[in-house]
Amino acid sequence: MDAQTPYARLKTRFARLTHLEDAAGMLHWDLSTVMPEGGAEARAAQLATLKTVSHDLLTAPEVGDLLDAADADEAPALDGWDRANLSAMRRQWRHATALSTALVEAHSRACSACEMAWRGARAADDFAAVRDRLATVLDLTREIAAAKAEALGRSPYDALLDEYEPGGSEAEIAPLFDDLAAELPAILDDALAAQAADPASALPPGPFPADKQRALARRLMERIGFDFRHGRLDESLHPFCGGVPDDVRLTTRYDEADFTSALMGVLHETGHALYERGLPAAWRDQPVGRALGMSVHESQSLLMEMQACRSRAFLTFAAPLMAEAFGARPGDPGWDAETLYRRNTRVEPGLIRVDADEVTYPAHVILRFRLERALLSGDLALDDLPGAWRDGMRDLLGVTVPDDRTGCLQDIHWYDGAIGYFPTYTLGAMTAAQLFAAAVAAVPSIPDDLARGDFAPLLGWLRTQVHGLGQSVTAREMLERATGRPLDAAVFTAHLRRRYVERVG
Amino acid sequence: MDAQTPYARLKTRFARLTHLEDAAGMLHWDLSTVMPEGGAEARAAQLATLKTVSHDLLTAPEVGDLLDAADADEAPALDGWDRANLSAMRRQWRHATALSTALVEAHSRACSACEMAWRGARAADDFAAVRDRLATVLDLTREIAAAKAEALGRSPYDALLDEYEPGGSEAEIAPLFDDLAAELPAILDDALAAQAADPASALPPGPFPADKQRALARRLMERIGFDFRHGRLDESLHPFCGGVPDDVRLTTRYDEADFTSALMGVLHETGHALYERGLPAAWRDQPVGRALGMSVHESQSLLMEMQACRSRAFLTFAAPLMAEAFGARPGDPGWDAETLYRRNTRVEPGLIRVDADEVTYPAHVILRFRLERALLSGDLALDDLPGAWRDGMRDLLGVTVPDDRTGCLQDIHWYDGAIGYFPTYTLGAMTAAQLFAAAVAAVPSIPDDLARGDFAPLLGWLRTQVHGLGQSVTAREMLERATGRPLDAAVFTAHLRRRYVERVG
Repeated sequence: MDAQTPYARLKTRFARLTHLEDAAGMLHWDLSTVMPEGGAEARAAQLATLKTVSHDLLTAPEVGDLLDAADADEAPALDGWDRANLSAMRRQWRHATALSTALVEAHSRACSACEMAWRGARAADDFAAVRDRLATVLDLTREIAAAKAEALGRSPYDALLDEYEPGGSEAEIAPLFDDLAAELPAILDDALAAQAADPASALPPGPFPADKQRALARRLMERIGFDFRHGRLDESLHPFCGGVPDDVRLTTRYDEADFTSALMGVLHETGHALYERGLPAAWRDQPVGRALGMSVHESQSLLMEMQACRSRAFLTFAAPLMAEAFGARPGDPGWDAETLYRRNTRVEPGLIRVDADEVTYPAHVILRFRLERALLSGDLALDDLPGAWRDGMRDLLGVTVPDDRTGCLQDIHWYDGAIGYFPTYTLGAMTAAQLFAAAVAAVPSIPDDLARGDFAPLLGWLRTQVHGLGQSVTAREMLERATGRPLDAAVFTAHLRRRYVERVG
Repeated sequence: MDAQTPYARLKTRFARLTHLEDAAGMLHWDLSTVMPEGGAEARAAQLATLKTVSHDLLTAPEVGDLLDAADADEAPALDGWDRANLSAMRRQWRHATALSTALVEAHSRACSACEMAWRGARAADDFAAVRDRLATVLDLTREIAAAKAEALGRSPYDALLDEYEPGGSEAEIAPLFDDLAAELPAILDDALAAQAADPASALPPGPFPADKQRALARRLMERIGFDFRHGRLDESLHPFCGGVPDDVRLTTRYDEADFTSALMGVLHETGHALYERGLPAAWRDQPVGRALGMSVHESQSLLMEMQACRSRAFLTFAAPLMAEAFGARPGDPGWDAETLYRRNTRVEPGLIRVDADEVTYPAHVILRFRLERALLSGDLALDDLPGAWRDGMRDLLGVTVPDDRTGCLQDIHWYDGAIGYFPTYTLGAMTAAQLFAAAVAAVPSIPDDLARGDFAPLLGWLRTQVHGLGQSVTAREMLERATGRPLDAAVFTAHLRRRYVERVG
């Protein structure tokens, strides 16, 4: 061991951390899909120990010394990938060592208690029942933000954001979201007007048996490029993409009255899965070989679902397959590509984020981004949250929030301690639009390819421009190289106008 | 932490070791049942890291100090369970620290290479193709045995045996097996004669669809006491019982031409599962809360399969359920209890251990026990193994071994480095017979209960006398308390005579 350089020793240690994280990922998949209820306590103990052991490995006193030695003596001679790897190690170590064990444990306990109380509070539409626990979570989150702000040399909110979005900042996001918020109401009005002029869309006749939905989903996943030798499709209450890059596990939930939500959900998760599978194989167990952050991850799922699979081009290809999957003929009412396109691009302002369409979704995120910053800074008192939520929904989407259950109690995130996560959804949507436009500019055949069900040209471009880079560049560098410009709202709003107002694309 | 006593600190550390071992157990289950082939490499890395991290936790220098301090200062004041726990910790630590990392790694590499070569050698019936690799495994196993012998104060073979059978010894096993070997040929002759006088048994007409076999297996598992809130039944190439005590995962493999082998396999694994589930809940994550060893574990599966479920009593109950499961009527040819009993108690000397019946199985084990001791001591040269195998099969079972594929190449164990494991199968069979006889003596209604499909009285007795004890006593103490005598061959041979010669029981 001692003959190894500090950086080589760090690589061994971080490979172990990756394996432990991967093991925990598989156990999470199991928990969500196949574990019997009685296994919960033992599983919690396994996961907690994996976390403790990983934390001990990452924060052992020698790690700081090794990082310093590697930075001082080896960094100048390392190539780009190794240098990026070393700095990703440093970032991970800073996050882990910024907090005392006591603070981490207090936060973890507070989040568990708050999340538990939130489940009851949401069901009972009773914000007061969870208010005090949320206050505790917020207080501890402020402590964490302050500690990380010092360790990372960032603002408190940016320090929280950095966990999900390395290098992301409030100062960059706020103006992007302001631009979007200024544009969206007009797009929404125009989209609703365009939609009102659409002919009525017959619903294809159900029910849609789960096994037929599954067969269709698998068929389209394979078309897109999912390799079942390296992954699975299963069922869980809350769909997700888990597992590890060489064994990606997607889940969905089938509704036999409507096959669209499960299918589009699967295509969304397939986008996540292809990103994981495309990460650089030579760096599988090092930080530089992992995904760039949540917004880039979300961009890959939204690119696949929203940009590619809800497009008129793809639905032209998929309509006959969908009809066939459920024993209908392509000409049958409700099964033509035009009807399916209209059904897959409906817009309707609503109360619930997870049910929102592509046009109204950003408003939900912008509201949460504004409110969570105000909560963290103390500008918004917790008692004023329900009212601020109602005001925000009225201003941003023109909808009236009738209760807290469909208002500030709807999402688990804050009650589970995740502050700084929400913006990544809409950053992901903007990134997806910008990347897809660049892909089409670089490979103009892509829309026609999708209309033939050929994803290879699109996937090939993504493999080179995004997936294969791992963390060897920052998210900003990746985007500028791939698209020639930093993230801005214009490509995304242009996409929305094209699809929802002009009804093309 | 420093305010804790050494024993309390050891408990925290051993709880973590349990959680890591449990995590690895779940990942093994996944690997054998649902993992796509492309996940193998990542899974191997996860499992290797869990092993390394566990080894580091167990062999850290402070563990020896804590054990010494706990033994010196705390042991006298501890109650029986904690004292047994402390000594189980010591045993585990001795096994782990006896070997250098270099030896463990060399052995692990040699076993992987040998096992790989064995697969080809068995298929090609070519012992020479694996001979040198097996020689390397044996050499390293001798080194391991010598090191453990010194650490544990046991003979080399006993030191290997101790891993599977804590406290077990060659000196105890050899005379038991000699008694058995002396009795078995006469039992076998008498059994074959009795069987020849049986009326012909019509085979119930197949095929037996896997989903119907599964439904029947689940129904009988629940009857026996398996709780599906705490476990699963799945499929794998090699059936096993895995998972953790509160989430026990059984597997089987369905043969649509014959439902008996999968069903009896499931009932066998259910015996293992009930043992795991019955281990003391208050000691779940401590060594004293784990199973007593492989022979006791095997006794629980064999008790359930052989003593209970192949009995005339149980088959009387199960015959109509079996008929019903496959759409037959209880009176239909082949579905009456007598026929099913005869089919489930057929005896036939054969070449393959895993296909052997209850009467001939011990001969296979006794042969391996004799040969592995001779190999380890050097009394038997590796080149003489194929011949010694043929001689042993002729002497013990009267069968002629035509080739090495069905001879000394049939089992994976030695080629994978497991020496000292084989005797636990037959120790388990003897223990099962002795425990079952004691259960019936204590609760005379048990055979009638089984004939009504009521396992509660039998399971209740096992919970108290075996399962709930964990490692708070030794296997020998458990058996003497439960049955009033040490292990001897007489109860087992009496059972064999009763069932296979007198054709009752």
